[in-house]
Amino acid sequence: MNESKLITPRKLAGFWELPPEKEILFEQMQEKIKKVFENNCFVPLDTPVLELSEILLAKSSGEMDKELFAFTKGSTSMCMRYDLTVPLARFVAANANTLEFPFKRYQIGKNYRGERPQRGRFREFYQCDADIIGSETLSMVADAECVKLYLDCFDALGYPVVVEISNRNLLFGLIEDFGDSEKAEDIIILLDKFDKIGEESLISSLAQLGISSKNIDKYVSAIKVKGNFKEIQSKLSPLSNNDTFKKAIAELEEVEQYLTAFGCDKEGYIYNVGIIRGHNYYTGTVFEAYLKGRRDLPAFGGGGRYDNLAGYFTDKKLPGVGMSIGLTRMFDLLDQNGLLPEIKKSNIDLFIIPLGDYTPHCVSLCSYFRSNGIKAEVAYDSKSFKSKMKEADRRQIPFVMVVGENEVNSGTYALKNMSTGTQTTLTKEECLNELKR
Amino acid sequence: MNESKLITPRKLAGFWELPPEKEILFEQMQEKIKKVFENNCFVPLDTPVLELSEILLAKSSGEMDKELFAFTKGSTSMCMRYDLTVPLARFVAANANTLEFPFKRYQIGKNYRGERPQRGRFREFYQCDADIIGSETLSMVADAECVKLYLDCFDALGYPVVVEISNRNLLFGLIEDFGDSEKAEDIIILLDKFDKIGEESLISSLAQLGISSKNIDKYVSAIKVKGNFKEIQSKLSPLSNNDTFKKAIAELEEVEQYLTAFGCDKEGYIYNVGIIRGHNYYTGTVFEAYLKGRRDLPAFGGGGRYDNLAGYFTDKKLPGVGMSIGLTRMFDLLDQNGLLPEIKKSNIDLFIIPLGDYTPHCVSLCSYFRSNGIKAEVAYDSKSFKSKMKEADRRQIPFVMVVGENEVNSGTYALKNMSTGTQTTLTKEECLNELKR
Repeated sequence: MNESKLITPRKLAGFWELPPEKEILFEQMQEKIKKVFENNCFVPLDTPVLELSEILLAKSSGEMDKELFAFTKGSTSMCMRYDLTVPLARFVAANANTLEFPFKRYQIGKNYRGERPQRGRFREFYQCDADIIGSETLSMVADAECVKLYLDCFDALGYPVVVEISNRNLLFGLIEDFGDSEKAEDIIILLDKFDKIGEESLISSLAQLGISSKNIDKYVSAIKVKGNFKEIQSKLSPLSNNDTFKKAIAELEEVEQYLTAFGCDKEGYIYNVGIIRGHNYYTGTVFEAYLKGRRDLPAFGGGGRYDNLAGYFTDKKLPGVGMSIGLTRMFDLLDQNGLLPEIKKSNIDLFIIPLGDYTPHCVSLCSYFRSNGIKAEVAYDSKSFKSKMKEADRRQIPFVMVVGENEVNSGTYALKNMSTGTQTTLTKEECLNELKR
Repeated sequence: MNESKLITPRKLAGFWELPPEKEILFEQMQEKIKKVFENNCFVPLDTPVLELSEILLAKSSGEMDKELFAFTKGSTSMCMRYDLTVPLARFVAANANTLEFPFKRYQIGKNYRGERPQRGRFREFYQCDADIIGSETLSMVADAECVKLYLDCFDALGYPVVVEISNRNLLFGLIEDFGDSEKAEDIIILLDKFDKIGEESLISSLAQLGISSKNIDKYVSAIKVKGNFKEIQSKLSPLSNNDTFKKAIAELEEVEQYLTAFGCDKEGYIYNVGIIRGHNYYTGTVFEAYLKGRRDLPAFGGGGRYDNLAGYFTDKKLPGVGMSIGLTRMFDLLDQNGLLPEIKKSNIDLFIIPLGDYTPHCVSLCSYFRSNGIKAEVAYDSKSFKSKMKEADRRQIPFVMVVGENEVNSGTYALKNMSTGTQTTLTKEECLNELKR
């Protein structure tokens, strides 16, 4: 009894770990997304989880964020990645002379944020990213391609989404036009909170910032503009003649043209000026993907265009556009809302139960079925026959075969269908045919 | 020109990052292994990369190993995993009441060791692990199943291996019999070095340890015993009547019986008493997989049986057996020895080059081909026609299609086969048929 010496087998708070029966489903989702990325000519990249701190913190001028998992080993300061974009920038900058542009890469990997654990927020989480990086210039085809990728991915996953698209320069153009440029970033941050805080609170916050009530009206009505391209074009055009603003509309028109060329389902996307994507590095098109008919749930992913991917690492101008799916968060949301398919308790097709000393014969049968693509398992533990039958039932294994002297001598086996209760005596070849059906 | 402010885009030393064209191959290998694991009824587990230090260091009684990536966040001491076995032990101990035993799980994931970077040693590396955990007891079927898994995995990968099998208790039994029990661990460590240091050096090291020359002779001849089961049985049996020793032979006989039942290729495994697997936690069967005909290369993986997986975390007795493939190391070895297949420069099947303003038409064509499983790409960048043709050539893209006014009006396209140079004018449906061939 060394119980006092035992260490409680617990994992770190806020870290994700699925039971195997759910993990099967989660990995199938990863595989489906991967297949879509590959079919769209993206190539895989698998950057290290750890990077030099000076690389990951390039954007923040080296200031250490307390949400990062950072540490020093020897004299090297290192950090666990918090996204897949900075490592991509590092890779592209280092290999810009040998890569072909546009460079289309995908990465499905774990990221780390050391924030306080809370419901729906994970400290280790999967992102599925696809980015297209150009050299000097990048066609708006790429922006449309990212929107199309969402539709393809969620089509493959069986969860139809609506991608909501905007261009950040619509709002920046208006802010410029209305003389609020000095407060541009603060205005953007507030407008981005509209969905969360509501109209009243947004208006009072903008007023506190010193924005005139005339301008507040204009911003608030702008972020409510939503519809197909023709609809938003007709609503937006009268608002301003500002060049930045007009260019943003022209860019969206190009995106629309290519979305049509890609044959995107018109039900699969909409334009929404309220899509802002925070105060991050996007500089043009932005988009977010929402589960169709469930706009109450957070976005399953988002992305957009950035003028220059790797300005901290190279003088080469590398414009890009990328899309990301927050797979861990999405899976959790689907699970919490009862939207996952039924979880199978076992991945086993056939349970072979040996009687007496016939385990080797069962192993041989099992090997025959496995080599023909059937997930067969021998109940080779020492439990009683009765408890093995109960186990087959509990694990919802669809077929069971009991093998003893009679079966071995006759070369025929009673295959029991556990859902119907019927039992048929067959040769192993006939069993295989039955199982393959 | 802000060159002085640029940060050199470098990764941490000793960290692995493949160029995409090789990464495609590496990921295909992972997928093949995963499929074999699943076909053999193993279920996936994806434990966090970070664990509490008290969990990862349970084995070493909490003593911090300087090879670990460990750090403290708030008041929590945490550590990046160095293998997939301790996290498995933690998971099984925590879930022992709900899991079905034998529990068969696989995990393909990255591990971390902070050792000094050197050729062939990586600080971040993939392991592919499959383990079978029993409750209280575990049949020797499981040991045979792990050997069979190696054969199946490497068969799927197209790299045939020979699995070399032993049982650690053969040597422990002899040591007991010959009265050297007090120095058992030191003897084992030295015997394990035989391949590296050679016979002469081994003999002098054992002598220095105070082992009699009579016993040294016996140990050295024991570890040279190699062959099929009958051969090693006849060579080993006369050596000792020790119970531990005899039990080890009996266990190997059982393994042999099940390997035969599994239908394992007799060329795919051999018994070799020299397989020891260091001074780690294995307590019975041990095995290592070597590339067939290349015994000069290090093992691609190894594994074995352990009496009790999770003794630090639970009083439940959980015997197990596991196999592991060191995928990063293996890939590197294959690469260094010129044993990888030819690396394709591009994954693109068809390159569609627009002339003039016909990009939208090309996007539409591209979408048609992609939705039919062809990896089509539009050359939508702003480069010249000539440089796009050169690019197709350089990237070894097998088919090219140039699309301008004539093609759009006629609805027929000149499909150029880049390896033969032939060009055929076809409708898009005919192109698809041609590309699918």
